Amino acid sequence: MHINPVELIRKKRNGIQLEQQEIEAFISGAVKGFIPDYQVAAFLMSTYFQGMDLTETVALTKAMIQSGKQVHFQDSRPKIDKHSTGGVGDKISLILAPLVASLDVDVPMVSGRGLGHTGGTLDKLESIPGFNVKLQLHEFTELVSKNGLAMMGQTNDFVPADKLLYALRDVTATVECIPLITASILSKKVAEGISGLVLDIKVGNGAFMKTLKDAEKLARSLVTVGSKLGLKVRALITDMNQPLGYTVGNSLEVLESIEVLKGKGPSDLKELTIELAAHMLILGEKCSSIAAARRLVKKALQNRTALEKFKVMIKAQGVNIDIVENSTGLPLSTSTVEVLSHTNGTVTKIDSQALGLLLVDLGGGRCKTTDTIDHGVGFLLHAKVGSYLEKGEPLMTIYYNPQKLAEQNLKLETIIERTQKTYSLQNKKAGSYHHELIKKVIT
Amino acid sequence: MHINPVELIRKKRNGIQLEQQEIEAFISGAVKGFIPDYQVAAFLMSTYFQGMDLTETVALTKAMIQSGKQVHFQDSRPKIDKHSTGGVGDKISLILAPLVASLDVDVPMVSGRGLGHTGGTLDKLESIPGFNVKLQLHEFTELVSKNGLAMMGQTNDFVPADKLLYALRDVTATVECIPLITASILSKKVAEGISGLVLDIKVGNGAFMKTLKDAEKLARSLVTVGSKLGLKVRALITDMNQPLGYTVGNSLEVLESIEVLKGKGPSDLKELTIELAAHMLILGEKCSSIAAARRLVKKALQNRTALEKFKVMIKAQGVNIDIVENSTGLPLSTSTVEVLSHTNGTVTKIDSQALGLLLVDLGGGRCKTTDTIDHGVGFLLHAKVGSYLEKGEPLMTIYYNPQKLAEQNLKLETIIERTQKTYSLQNKKAGSYHHELIKKVIT
Repeated sequence: MHINPVELIRKKRNGIQLEQQEIEAFISGAVKGFIPDYQVAAFLMSTYFQGMDLTETVALTKAMIQSGKQVHFQDSRPKIDKHSTGGVGDKISLILAPLVASLDVDVPMVSGRGLGHTGGTLDKLESIPGFNVKLQLHEFTELVSKNGLAMMGQTNDFVPADKLLYALRDVTATVECIPLITASILSKKVAEGISGLVLDIKVGNGAFMKTLKDAEKLARSLVTVGSKLGLKVRALITDMNQPLGYTVGNSLEVLESIEVLKGKGPSDLKELTIELAAHMLILGEKCSSIAAARRLVKKALQNRTALEKFKVMIKAQGVNIDIVENSTGLPLSTSTVEVLSHTNGTVTKIDSQALGLLLVDLGGGRCKTTDTIDHGVGFLLHAKVGSYLEKGEPLMTIYYNPQKLAEQNLKLETIIERTQKTYSLQNKKAGSYHHELIKKVIT
Repeated sequence: MHINPVELIRKKRNGIQLEQQEIEAFISGAVKGFIPDYQVAAFLMSTYFQGMDLTETVALTKAMIQSGKQVHFQDSRPKIDKHSTGGVGDKISLILAPLVASLDVDVPMVSGRGLGHTGGTLDKLESIPGFNVKLQLHEFTELVSKNGLAMMGQTNDFVPADKLLYALRDVTATVECIPLITASILSKKVAEGISGLVLDIKVGNGAFMKTLKDAEKLARSLVTVGSKLGLKVRALITDMNQPLGYTVGNSLEVLESIEVLKGKGPSDLKELTIELAAHMLILGEKCSSIAAARRLVKKALQNRTALEKFKVMIKAQGVNIDIVENSTGLPLSTSTVEVLSHTNGTVTKIDSQALGLLLVDLGGGRCKTTDTIDHGVGFLLHAKVGSYLEKGEPLMTIYYNPQKLAEQNLKLETIIERTQKTYSLQNKKAGSYHHELIKKVIT
């Protein structure tokens, strides 16, 4: 279809529904470079203001999927993935993928890198010496068929429209737009060749969505559009008012993930992993009740079948598996310092976004996509919401790189002070500051 | 000032007032090429949706003025200009500039070219063989100081920010935005070094503004922002529900303008010219009452002092003035055809926008800025709103270029048919279809 890009922008600007063919032609023209970035930018901003209805969002997602190559599996085993909208300390994919794959539901996982205050699964994987996230699509497909799972980064031929749109949204203040977020997430997931998707929509001070209302809106959009695209979708809205588990930073998070795969690890991280895994098993038709699914999942953690699957995966992607048994060999900074509590009291809040940004300052995250990162730095928390502390007790340990701080002209004292401020304490022993971890399930 | 363009876009997107320094830094960054077009496009679209208040619009206009060179006059004679928002058959500048200059109010006029259905003064001037519109700023300044007037096109160093923004607005559907229109018009006028400006805000089927309400909004914005910039501004809201005068097309319009300068010509064209000129004289402090100003203006047309000034201008800009006395030498197509009325009746409406677009089809206007035009084609109207016609009487004569039509695969019959349809006739002799030519004066 021949379209006039200015007229299409004007139509969207005026709140008139775009036709499927118009959206297809626009996206295809943009990816091929016929439609310049400034017209794509104007289109994105008018979409920010006028939104998109269900039909348009479905059309946009399809057009984006068609912009590149898609994964097609030959076998009939269920293929289910999980996507998180991003948080702080969220290492769940590393545990979840082998856990679910160990229960005969394949997990083909195309992941992303950290940006801003949120971490990315690829960075965490790359803390493991030797781990290769740069697979070709056919290698990825083969690994999933053979082992039941593989984890990789976006290749150049995988949903190129998303690459283009995302890069532009990032620099034109059009990231916060539900139809654009929906199309971005679902295009990559459908292109993975999956039949079902469990979404972890984070809400809270460390999440993209700050209110339950916004999180629900996004969840409903993803579930509705996903189902129009033939995907079984469930969304869990989960708390991100404090980091998940006790670690923030790439190597530290891998170590904590291995703990969970060994049947140990912190309760919140375990709880959410189990819940997401159980929903994935239901979508994969391995169980008919959530209670039965939970039982299966817990067993796979306890008897270490999930851990064995993790070893299979990392070995297949280039890693010496001794790393897992001994929990050594990961780059972890040897310079540490404890951050102490200034007062007695119970932790009421941890500003996770601030903590995520502090990780960027330490060198463990990115300001822009081209930044390189230090996998060895991070935070090991000693107290979470509800913990009671006496003055002088440690809130957390900072793993830092003195050279990196010097390069940026940052003083360790300033980092300590700012880290301390991410904790809010109230001077009483009450423990009623618990946030419900799983707030809502939307199907 | 250092700004983050994404944050500035986000601020505007969220409806937060931008500061003067932020706007300055953004415009200067855009003109210098530090801020890419896609960010400028996103800024323009968010401005389309969120608007700009008076302070922001003033800041934007100032930033645009400062992006290039400005004209500074040494003498103390009043400098007043006119700007029209564009219409069909609007050749007033050609008459008005010499008319006002002949009454000792200088007119430094930087004009534009036609685009879409509206014509442009530069194209009309270039119908006159030899007329040079490409002056340098210093030549322009010298001519105004010497002769009291000069007319030229925008040079590269004259408000380059407007060039950049206008080109982007045109391709991103962000033309229709009052603060952006206001800044575009006023930046160029203030940079001309004038002290007063009379605006001709067209409203109707051949104008950019289709309703009186929109026209008034724009007029008030221009008057308010202009006065904040130290300019005396008056806006006349005038009818554009039919072409001005009886001609549409470059050479034809020049010939009609010369008729008015000779004290003849059609009444509507004369009426509006006199009114605009009278307001310019008042802004130039040559008269204290509009009635006195009108008397002076009419006299300058009748006694041909305006015509003499016109000769001075065209001679100074490269033309042999014999052209004026004999009204010959202009390129006028020799292929003509009459369009006849299909019925008896009174003309109730002429679709001026359609007629303007038909001129583009004849080759006398532009679809895109890079098109070249044929100055010899156009329409000579024989009937206007209120005229009574018998079936078979001529509505107008088309001056066409058979070769141009052939090149575009257009049939003359189709052009005739479409031209016929621009006229609406009602089958009664009543003459109450008169549109008031001057609808409102806003000061």
